Amino acid sequence: MRIAVCPGSFDPLTNGHVDIIRRGAGLFDRIIVAILVNEQKTPLFTTAERVEMVREAFAADVSVGVETFEGLLVDFAERHDACAIVRGLRAVSDFEYEFQMALMNRRLNARVETVFMMPAAEYSYISSRLVKEVVMLGGSVAGLVPPAVERRLHDKRARG
Amino acid sequence: MRIAVCPGSFDPLTNGHVDIIRRGAGLFDRIIVAILVNEQKTPLFTTAERVEMVREAFAADVSVGVETFEGLLVDFAERHDACAIVRGLRAVSDFEYEFQMALMNRRLNARVETVFMMPAAEYSYISSRLVKEVVMLGGSVAGLVPPAVERRLHDKRARG
Amino acid sequence: MRIAVCPGSFDPLTNGHVDIIRRGAGLFDRIIVAILVNEQKTPLFTTAERVEMVREAFAADVSVGVETFEGLLVDFAERHDACAIVRGLRAVSDFEYEFQMALMNRRLNARVETVFMMPAAEYSYISSRLVKEVVMLGGSVAGLVPPAVERRLHDKRARG
Amino acid sequence: MRIAVCPGSFDPLTNGHVDIIRRGAGLFDRIIVAILVNEQKTPLFTTAERVEMVREAFAADVSVGVETFEGLLVDFAERHDACAIVRGLRAVSDFEYEFQMALMNRRLNARVETVFMMPAAEYSYISSRLVKEVVMLGGSVAGLVPPAVERRLHDKRARG
Amino acid sequence: MRIAVCPGSFDPLTNGHVDIIRRGAGLFDRIIVAILVNEQKTPLFTTAERVEMVREAFAADVSVGVETFEGLLVDFAERHDACAIVRGLRAVSDFEYEFQMALMNRRLNARVETVFMMPAAEYSYISSRLVKEVVMLGGSVAGLVPPAVERRLHDKRARG
Amino acid sequence: MRIAVCPGSFDPLTNGHVDIIRRGAGLFDRIIVAILVNEQKTPLFTTAERVEMVREAFAADVSVGVETFEGLLVDFAERHDACAIVRGLRAVSDFEYEFQMALMNRRLNARVETVFMMPAAEYSYISSRLVKEVVMLGGSVAGLVPPAVERRLHDKRARG
Repeated sequence: MRIAVCPGSFDPLTNGHVDIIRRGAGLFDRIIVAILVNEQKTPLFTTAERVEMVREAFAADVSVGVETFEGLLVDFAERHDACAIVRGLRAVSDFEYEFQMALMNRRLNARVETVFMMPAAEYSYISSRLVKEVVMLGGSVAGLVPPAVERRLHDKRARG
Repeated sequence: MRIAVCPGSFDPLTNGHVDIIRRGAGLFDRIIVAILVNEQKTPLFTTAERVEMVREAFAADVSVGVETFEGLLVDFAERHDACAIVRGLRAVSDFEYEFQMALMNRRLNARVETVFMMPAAEYSYISSRLVKEVVMLGGSVAGLVPPAVERRLHDKRARG
Repeated sequence: MRIAVCPGSFDPLTNGHVDIIRRGAGLFDRIIVAILVNEQKTPLFTTAERVEMVREAFAADVSVGVETFEGLLVDFAERHDACAIVRGLRAVSDFEYEFQMALMNRRLNARVETVFMMPAAEYSYISSRLVKEVVMLGGSVAGLVPPAVERRLHDKRARG
Repeated sequence: MRIAVCPGSFDPLTNGHVDIIRRGAGLFDRIIVAILVNEQKTPLFTTAERVEMVREAFAADVSVGVETFEGLLVDFAERHDACAIVRGLRAVSDFEYEFQMALMNRRLNARVETVFMMPAAEYSYISSRLVKEVVMLGGSVAGLVPPAVERRLHDKRARG
Repeated sequence: MRIAVCPGSFDPLTNGHVDIIRRGAGLFDRIIVAILVNEQKTPLFTTAERVEMVREAFAADVSVGVETFEGLLVDFAERHDACAIVRGLRAVSDFEYEFQMALMNRRLNARVETVFMMPAAEYSYISSRLVKEVVMLGGSVAGLVPPAVERRLHDKRARG
Repeated sequence: MRIAVCPGSFDPLTNGHVDIIRRGAGLFDRIIVAILVNEQKTPLFTTAERVEMVREAFAADVSVGVETFEGLLVDFAERHDACAIVRGLRAVSDFEYEFQMALMNRRLNARVETVFMMPAAEYSYISSRLVKEVVMLGGSVAGLVPPAVERRLHDKRARG
């Protein structure tokens, strides 16, 4: 059984993330969405909310799991017997940061390989940061995030 | 009548901005410089000062107006009957951010088109951030910003 | 009246080209598609065929014209009273080549400004070269080129 | 059983290729090295020689196969029941070409996914073209290609 | 005698920095490592610690000196009779930032030239920021920084 | 005495080349312009003409020499006791090609270091290829190449 982890902040999950996770699930026996708990940053959604949003989006897909992690990603991958880290690549600027991280992770643990996948072109411009910004300014992100995420974003805005 | 908006923080206006606004003014009947009011950031110049600096620089050019905006840029453009957003492109890193924003803006309002223009090569390395940094360290930015902006920068430095 | 030229080889016209020409037609009073006659290259389609394909695609749009040109693009633009050259930008590699050409054209004739527009994300990976390659290997390009262009590509392939 | 194809010209196989094929072999049950037969190009090594070089390098690894192909890569992948195309990514210029091809291949056959892997940093500057150029100018490529490939390159040079 | 300065935060010195400084020392008669004192940022190591780490790493190399600086880099270079600023280039994102700074520095003082050098490929993914992050998460950076820097990083972590 | 080589085709010498050679001459005791003799390519100017154009441009500068070379650049550098190869960097696409070459050259001969310098912004868009193309189409390249090169280009066109 080949397991891959798909790490990120997922603050919140976007359709770009969903697309990459689905594509990864087609290549590995199990995909673990690994949500980074970073106490120094102030996310819009709590860790628990971010876990729920991923669970809701993949409720029907038994090969997709979700966990939180702190510390080194390669240690998390090792503990879960993962052979791969799956990352989406959208743009040149992604590319350089991702390569730097992938080379460092390889050095920290050569048994875990990083593979890059490409989202559908229609999701190439979506990021969690931009989605939050648009909602906070009153714009619609329908079609860019799962419907349940859209509702939660509007709740956050209303409470404000 | 074709109207374009040229959005930004303009903190402060540089000769790179002036160059793009002039080029845009040659292609459209009216250009509205749209100064972003972002309460979460702390600009060096107040909104009023940033408006004045643009007014001073384009006092002689009746086709250039200046407004402030909050909220979504495409809503601002729609309210002013603008058909285009004009943006300067200097470098590859600009390019990717600008494309992400342009694709999102197109999704939010397909009636407003983003067009990119290129500053003169001699302005390709100027940014508001770098201009402020140089002045605060005691360097000269003569020729990189309009003379009135240079005076205001030195005033800010003198006051600390 | 503001006129723009949209230059290229158009060997053949793709839906990416059609998209940029339509977007340009929304910003200028007239767009002239300028087909480069380059005797040193061997195009798949003759100049006459390339002109016809553009005519067919824009038969219903009176603001779009088509011409052929040799020599300097800025001389062509000047002869047709154009104030702008419209170019599509899809990727970083486009960006650098386009900037080099735009700066040279500006030096050759400062009265003609180059403006860059962005195709729809779904067309970001289409090029005339790739379209020809796929058809010659037996693949379908339906949806990537206008139907009339698709028929002509299959005719070329059948004749070998 | 999950099968991947690793396509290319392999004219000749470099240690960069060997590295990517090995990494791919760790993630899939079988990797088929797919050597492109392109009659319009003039490779340094014949198709038969290129097949032999891959066979020699992976003689001990039963999960790596080698085949030649003409026509569309996605048709080759489909015939071999492959779920993935594995490509190495070294640099930004690779990135854009690879993304264009991957998006086109996805459109031609959505059942085959492209995954990108990163060679070891020490192989990031090797290409078949550069290896051939260095040997033809009298330089050593020891350590950049498998020893058997190095011998064949020197034979080609000796025969002129 | 030709003197060059090699500026940076060096928070902390990495083997990538050491590599560039050594390469620079081979081309100039004297290299002055210029440590930026930036009161607005909160470095992990004090200025004194950063100076010591550079001194320790180059104790045996009389052509390498170390100084701290505030204000404009070109003024520092001028005061030390330096003809060149040496910078390492690792990636495309480095490239654009470095070019912007180099063009600004040339404008501020045309007598000081910026030269770019390339670290060994194995150091292409190391940055001070990433090194600190890995150590704080419990990973090893042996081989990525000088041994004395590694000890100091572990001390900082132990103290929290 | 520190010697550097500045290699290229120089078909023909442009003001961008002149700028880089001058800047290099300020950092080294001697700069040898190394003109590549590549029998497989068909240059516009003969090797002798290219040597003459460099000689004419640097007649007054005794620290600049000119030679032709075949074979590996690092062997040429070694024979001339050069410690450095000087290359101009204009754009991201330059950057990646140059890095690949520099890493290969370092592997072939670690005693020769590659240093990159940046031309003046006003020369960032000039290349020998573009200069030839503009002249052949009847445009002016005054200010982009030395006057003697401009005359030779017009002679070639008249005869061409």
